[in-house]
Amino acid sequence: MRQQSSYSARPVFTAPVHALIKLERKSGLPLYRQICQRLREAILSGELAEGTRLPTERALASELGINRTTVMNAYNELASEGLIEGHVGRGTLVRRNHSSQFDEHFEQETASWLLGLPAGERELLGPDARLLSELTSVEKHQEIISLTPGSPAPDLLPAEMLSSIFSEGLLTSRHDALGYCPVEGLQSLRREIAIWMRTHGAPVDTEQILVLSGSTQGVGLVGRMLLNPGDEVVVEVPTYLGAIQAFRALQVRVIGVPTDSDGMRVDLLESILARHRPRLIYTQPTFQNPTGFVMSPERRRRLILLSRRYQTPILEDDPYGEIYFQEKRPQPLKALDPHGQVIYLSTFSKILAPGLRVAWLAAPEPMIERLSLHKQIFDLNTNALGQWSVAEILHRGLLTDHLQTLRQHYRRKRDLMLQAISKYWPPEVRVSHPEGGFHLWCRLPGDLRTRALLREAALERVAFVIGEPFHVDGGGQQQFRLSFAYPHEEDIEEAIKRLGHAMRRLLARRASRDEQQDLHIEHIPIV
Amino acid sequence: MRQQSSYSARPVFTAPVHALIKLERKSGLPLYRQICQRLREAILSGELAEGTRLPTERALASELGINRTTVMNAYNELASEGLIEGHVGRGTLVRRNHSSQFDEHFEQETASWLLGLPAGERELLGPDARLLSELTSVEKHQEIISLTPGSPAPDLLPAEMLSSIFSEGLLTSRHDALGYCPVEGLQSLRREIAIWMRTHGAPVDTEQILVLSGSTQGVGLVGRMLLNPGDEVVVEVPTYLGAIQAFRALQVRVIGVPTDSDGMRVDLLESILARHRPRLIYTQPTFQNPTGFVMSPERRRRLILLSRRYQTPILEDDPYGEIYFQEKRPQPLKALDPHGQVIYLSTFSKILAPGLRVAWLAAPEPMIERLSLHKQIFDLNTNALGQWSVAEILHRGLLTDHLQTLRQHYRRKRDLMLQAISKYWPPEVRVSHPEGGFHLWCRLPGDLRTRALLREAALERVAFVIGEPFHVDGGGQQQFRLSFAYPHEEDIEEAIKRLGHAMRRLLARRASRDEQQDLHIEHIPIV
Repeated sequence: MRQQSSYSARPVFTAPVHALIKLERKSGLPLYRQICQRLREAILSGELAEGTRLPTERALASELGINRTTVMNAYNELASEGLIEGHVGRGTLVRRNHSSQFDEHFEQETASWLLGLPAGERELLGPDARLLSELTSVEKHQEIISLTPGSPAPDLLPAEMLSSIFSEGLLTSRHDALGYCPVEGLQSLRREIAIWMRTHGAPVDTEQILVLSGSTQGVGLVGRMLLNPGDEVVVEVPTYLGAIQAFRALQVRVIGVPTDSDGMRVDLLESILARHRPRLIYTQPTFQNPTGFVMSPERRRRLILLSRRYQTPILEDDPYGEIYFQEKRPQPLKALDPHGQVIYLSTFSKILAPGLRVAWLAAPEPMIERLSLHKQIFDLNTNALGQWSVAEILHRGLLTDHLQTLRQHYRRKRDLMLQAISKYWPPEVRVSHPEGGFHLWCRLPGDLRTRALLREAALERVAFVIGEPFHVDGGGQQQFRLSFAYPHEEDIEEAIKRLGHAMRRLLARRASRDEQQDLHIEHIPIV
Repeated sequence: MRQQSSYSARPVFTAPVHALIKLERKSGLPLYRQICQRLREAILSGELAEGTRLPTERALASELGINRTTVMNAYNELASEGLIEGHVGRGTLVRRNHSSQFDEHFEQETASWLLGLPAGERELLGPDARLLSELTSVEKHQEIISLTPGSPAPDLLPAEMLSSIFSEGLLTSRHDALGYCPVEGLQSLRREIAIWMRTHGAPVDTEQILVLSGSTQGVGLVGRMLLNPGDEVVVEVPTYLGAIQAFRALQVRVIGVPTDSDGMRVDLLESILARHRPRLIYTQPTFQNPTGFVMSPERRRRLILLSRRYQTPILEDDPYGEIYFQEKRPQPLKALDPHGQVIYLSTFSKILAPGLRVAWLAAPEPMIERLSLHKQIFDLNTNALGQWSVAEILHRGLLTDHLQTLRQHYRRKRDLMLQAISKYWPPEVRVSHPEGGFHLWCRLPGDLRTRALLREAALERVAFVIGEPFHVDGGGQQQFRLSFAYPHEEDIEEAIKRLGHAMRRLLARRASRDEQQDLHIEHIPIV
């Protein structure tokens, strides 16, 4: 059913949507971009009115005589631009309230510069472009239990600690905490971080530390320094979504290496290094996001050796290393690295507070100087208030006790979640048993897809993250990630129970119906 | 005199430096880059030991049979990389303590990946790459009076206000202030900013606000969205240094339009728009940095008209608009813009505290959605603590009184500085009389160069910023910028008096000696 926007006086399109699209197979522009471009124009110009229902991916693909995936990519793109949205039971619609702002501020004849924008990084980010920010945002609907965010538990955010630091020190540290500071970071914080790292086995000096506005920035900066468009970079499969996006934005080719429960399959790496000569190896060796796996000591040593042999630097991303549940912290790659092959990246977002937006990078000094030139363009410097707060926390020795609290709390939550899973889930679902970090990594049995589970889970009011966006090889359709760190303790069992219901419905349906069932599901943008 | 590094056991170069460099005029690589590349390799490999004195620019240029500017550009580049440094009276030396870190962590045979790095943005930034961060850093030497930073006065940083906000609200706003927040910004802050802008005549909604980690980030984001490498962008001459750097990093061509005391010469703009079809016009119409000029109302209207006629959007950068010394605030371009031609950019760095790192951008909603996709890659989101603090300040109505205090304080400092100038400086020096902002803009008489004045001023222990880095047309050799906002009130007269001494010495020398004198000065990196 087509709906016409009530406030639009412009002519709207009444012919079938596929008639809008003339594909040119020889144009050099990928087909999904051609579809995108044409539909975007039609939506922005009002040809397709708000609320217009678009054909299903299957129907449009068949009308245009192309692959369904091509249409899916185009729809994902338009959804990520906020132009269309999926509704359960109603299909894919041109989004409401989208063009109202547009109409107010852009008369039809003045909008041409906006319509002609180059696509830039948006298209490079791919269809899941907005997922990362949505994962880190708070769920708006309180009734939904969210197992999606890679965020610390809200009640462990150190508001009391910070409040007393501010009341004791802010007036006398006005300039450090509130002024501009060097691109490289507040000197006091760089010093404290270097001390912290040295006591954890990695021999770094103050001048080898670059303070960052979150570790996402670090991936971008290192990428900008080391990579040119067309270069190749190696990542684990699966790997951190934000890293994939950062590399895609740099227009580099991302090569995936499989992982198992001992981390990256380093045995498969050498042939990749020899054949592709990539410029960088990106890894999360410790409590990896999304899998929670820890790279074995043997593989760590071998990885460093290969990195040295092929002169390919390693970017070690270590946001979760301090959240360990056994006796001691797995040693970072950086501690095994006498030859400067490892650029080390970590953050205070998981162990203190994401809102401070303070992370850091440790690398040889000449590299810090060059990276800081790039950082200067990104944001001039990291917020001084957050930097000064973290420096005070480290200087006063408050982090050690805080980390003990976090480890106990998160271990308890992991145990609660695993116990609930063994109680409520079908035994065929495979689940990791992480010894640290924030996440469980799960796999559905048989040919069940997590996109189908996501729909069932939405009906149960539970949210999680599907596996595909963590995969650069097109895989992950059966995997999903659960955060045990973020939800309230008392919600964990309930959430797992609800997911169990969703799984059993899915299994029952598969047993009773056509196995192709989930291919008929309408496209719902990943949120 | 050559000095050999005491800890380097590697062979060092003993032949003349020019013998190291083989220029290939047909290689396509600019000559200064060839010189740079060769000297960089020689320094990093140890061929040129630490402390080695390099020939003067003049001498090397003559040995190589090239222009002196070419050598100057190469030296500036190497200085900005921290590989060489200038010493008054000793010439240009290979920097000490540079390679020590390097040696420790990179054995000769392992360092090859670092030596082969693509140059990336660093070279695009040009020789003054580090200047901006140095301007915003605090002067290390207390005895020097610095008139360089574009920073608020340290004693006006609102530590008391923030301290009471933290003690009253942090515990109950834990999640807002310390968690992750949406890429677009904390909803409460976006709402407060929209209200603030509406009360100042620009009709914007909450959804049209994007919170930024400093306004430098805004220039980069808008650039990334609107511009492809090779595109053209129009800026004022002179203009904000950080904008020039951001555009250079995007590999776009920057076209300068002259300014006078009524701001951009909009009468010269139309032919540029017609001929070049640039993708963006960047302007600081109100209390411009560095000149302090305000664009006249007639030119503002004409600028908007031209922007619309040629469908070239305007990026209005307005960091100083609230720091006005007359009756009322000059109206932003955004308030004259019914057709959505203006993207408005401003910051809390100048009116509250740079250390909060909170700025914002106002643009049509579809643009905000696309910009936030780019921001997500830069830093995921702006620090929540700073955002929440600013939202509280706005919500409690504390900004209005604070601004009154700032205006009075900075007007008094401007007056002190202008009075001292009329007392101590030769009358031939031309000085602006700004009605707002942080800076005076000055011009030396005759053919006197500010680089020469900078040297004399260093002997007098006063620092300021020379005019060249603000110019995209190679000009500015006789201009300089003074900050009246940053120095202590009691230092202003003394600093101006010292600069007066420096000027008189320069004038006396010109009268008594060869007019070419200042061409013989050894190169000192701009700091």
